[in-house]
Amino acid sequence: MSDHTYKHIELTGSSTESSDQAIQNAIAKAAESVKNMHWFNVVDTRGYIEDGGVKYWQVTIKIGFRIED
Amino acid sequence: MSDHTYKHIELTGSSTESSDQAIQNAIAKAAESVKNMHWFNVVDTRGYIEDGGVKYWQVTIKIGFRIED
Amino acid sequence: MSDHTYKHIELTGSSTESSDQAIQNAIAKAAESVKNMHWFNVVDTRGYIEDGGVKYWQVTIKIGFRIED
Amino acid sequence: MSDHTYKHIELTGSSTESSDQAIQNAIAKAAESVKNMHWFNVVDTRGYIEDGGVKYWQVTIKIGFRIED
Amino acid sequence: MSDHTYKHIELTGSSTESSDQAIQNAIAKAAESVKNMHWFNVVDTRGYIEDGGVKYWQVTIKIGFRIED
Amino acid sequence: MSDHTYKHIELTGSSTESSDQAIQNAIAKAAESVKNMHWFNVVDTRGYIEDGGVKYWQVTIKIGFRIED
Amino acid sequence: MSDHTYKHIELTGSSTESSDQAIQNAIAKAAESVKNMHWFNVVDTRGYIEDGGVKYWQVTIKIGFRIED
Amino acid sequence: MSDHTYKHIELTGSSTESSDQAIQNAIAKAAESVKNMHWFNVVDTRGYIEDGGVKYWQVTIKIGFRIED
Amino acid sequence: MSDHTYKHIELTGSSTESSDQAIQNAIAKAAESVKNMHWFNVVDTRGYIEDGGVKYWQVTIKIGFRIED
Amino acid sequence: MSDHTYKHIELTGSSTESSDQAIQNAIAKAAESVKNMHWFNVVDTRGYIEDGGVKYWQVTIKIGFRIED
Amino acid sequence: MSDHTYKHIELTGSSTESSDQAIQNAIAKAAESVKNMHWFNVVDTRGYIEDGGVKYWQVTIKIGFRIED
Amino acid sequence: MSDHTYKHIELTGSSTESSDQAIQNAIAKAAESVKNMHWFNVVDTRGYIEDGGVKYWQVTIKIGFRIED
Repeated sequence: MSDHTYKHIELTGSSTESSDQAIQNAIAKAAESVKNMHWFNVVDTRGYIEDGGVKYWQVTIKIGFRIED
Repeated sequence: MSDHTYKHIELTGSSTESSDQAIQNAIAKAAESVKNMHWFNVVDTRGYIEDGGVKYWQVTIKIGFRIED
Repeated sequence: MSDHTYKHIELTGSSTESSDQAIQNAIAKAAESVKNMHWFNVVDTRGYIEDGGVKYWQVTIKIGFRIED
Repeated sequence: MSDHTYKHIELTGSSTESSDQAIQNAIAKAAESVKNMHWFNVVDTRGYIEDGGVKYWQVTIKIGFRIED
Repeated sequence: MSDHTYKHIELTGSSTESSDQAIQNAIAKAAESVKNMHWFNVVDTRGYIEDGGVKYWQVTIKIGFRIED
Repeated sequence: MSDHTYKHIELTGSSTESSDQAIQNAIAKAAESVKNMHWFNVVDTRGYIEDGGVKYWQVTIKIGFRIED
Repeated sequence: MSDHTYKHIELTGSSTESSDQAIQNAIAKAAESVKNMHWFNVVDTRGYIEDGGVKYWQVTIKIGFRIED
Repeated sequence: MSDHTYKHIELTGSSTESSDQAIQNAIAKAAESVKNMHWFNVVDTRGYIEDGGVKYWQVTIKIGFRIED
Repeated sequence: MSDHTYKHIELTGSSTESSDQAIQNAIAKAAESVKNMHWFNVVDTRGYIEDGGVKYWQVTIKIGFRIED
Repeated sequence: MSDHTYKHIELTGSSTESSDQAIQNAIAKAAESVKNMHWFNVVDTRGYIEDGGVKYWQVTIKIGFRIED
Repeated sequence: MSDHTYKHIELTGSSTESSDQAIQNAIAKAAESVKNMHWFNVVDTRGYIEDGGVKYWQVTIKIGFRIED
Repeated sequence: MSDHTYKHIELTGSSTESSDQAIQNAIAKAAESVKNMHWFNVVDTRGYIEDGGVKYWQVTIKIGFRIED
């Protein structure tokens, strides 16, 4: 495991439900084209406001995935 | 849209339920006196502890609202 | 109250459910051995990915507790 | 001069021309309602993209103004 | 207490005496127009120099106050 | 709009003219291969010096673009 | 001296008098149970407000102490 | 040289030998698919522990490479 | 693995040889009293100078270890 | 080139025209006494306000210059 | 005043009395060789511990002084 | 020792061998003209890439030296 190389990509996911779901949506979208994803970490949490409430959440994450040998 | 000016205010909302709800509460309170709110971003997430659990969540956010012409 | 001293410890809690629950789990674990916990603040939110979704959430928090006189 | 108190406000100005002009626009807008402004500092520079170029610049600044006695 | 909302303002206070007194002066000035102030935290400590010594101290703080229901 | 996912890329653009033009050049270059670019934010501004002046400006930006469904 | 190992602990001390005294109080409290303390550095300075003035100062410090061989 | 555009990628390399070798391994892996790499800078140095020692080093770097015209 | 809790401690290790060895020394010292150490990350790298060279390296790391159930 | 040593100095330049010109002015002033300047990076952008506009721009930069052998 | 250039130097001053006095001592020492000093800002506050109290305070500041024309 | 004043300088050293050697080279170069150097701390680690490997390491450090009385 010590000789693996990982690449990081930065994505912003959105959700009308919750900040956690915005993260899930970003990962689900990435999974369509990226393999071997291992972890994520949150870079920024924000969102848009409408009618005195959160219209949708936007969470920016970094995802690390293993580069295949 | 390019000639709009936005002002930012910083608020801390509280909730006994969840960190997301603390954000919703801060925005709902701000909506009583601020118009044209567009977005928020999370500055700090913290809370108070009682009996080995989170008593209430406290999330500090910045809110951006458009200054009317 | 002005002459109290507080100590901070840093913990990472995990949960398969949500980022908020990872915080609750870290506090519950700490409560087994630490008394007089007052507050926490979030240092880092991350997690592990499996099958295109979050396998478990990992949230690092600082907890402040009062040193007894 | 040593007994003055200053308040800071945070604004985002926009311009289709340049990043400097976005700052000028934020200050001009603030000048409609704020007196005794002394200085600003840049917090964040960003913008929106359209047709492969900058559609408008958005610069967030803090402005310090003297609270009148 | 869990349903309170707090607003933050940022001020710079000055003093010829000490850095602590610059904080006290900023709070005293704010108290003329702001109610329900609860806490402050130091953002920046600086000052002006004259004749090889500190002419006056300038400390920038954030003050949190409870928004009344 | 709430279910969009955005990806961020980081680029450094160069210009002998100005810091703003270095940003324009980075975006123009990116537009050759990236679609649906929405925004940028400045990460770092630097440059090279020759003959006591700026030889060319180098501005590093992050660009966010929408991942197509 | 090159083969020593130091451990860091983070404490918040309080004082009604001054920010410096809050640091002294944190160190005095730590000295009741920790030996071989060498240095501290300030992490955060804050305080509570009452009647338009500082009720008590709270300074968070890290303390480094040598782990005995 | 002033009209070049550079793209940055972020990678984590691993090594059982040293932190420097973890950087070399990340660059060697990137070289299999990326051309015109010019520089790197270290973002984060960490590692895994086993049997009271470093099992392997993990260094996260950003690499800048020139986008071909 | 998702229900584990980790605690972080911060240590400064020293070495006359290299920055990597300073990390190894801190971990070896910690291993005398801490079990289940999993990872470390570098917080700060510094050192003392004598006779125009590095007399000894000092690296501050955080170590994460699993709290036993 | 690999055995060069560079020293950094930090300067604040001013201009009534633009933020870019403030950087040019700082470099031109430094060039009167410093040789072998290679690069600069922007540390802080601020300015003074008068009559609802920017009176002059102040940009703080670091300049790197090669120490001659 | 808009065409002045300022240089910054970084110093650490010490005092057995207080953190403010450590700043005063650094400025007094600098005044022996530097002219036209205008302002300072605090970068870091730390100190050495002996016998369960602060032996001496060490404050690192940046000083800005005008480069003479 | 409590009344000493220290000045900090920032240097970038280079080496084809290792990141540690780049630090040693910067200190050795500084030692040609600076006396009473006490400590350094690493500000930034980077390097240049050629042929899929590190061509040379560049480490930026701050050096603290005592100003003689």
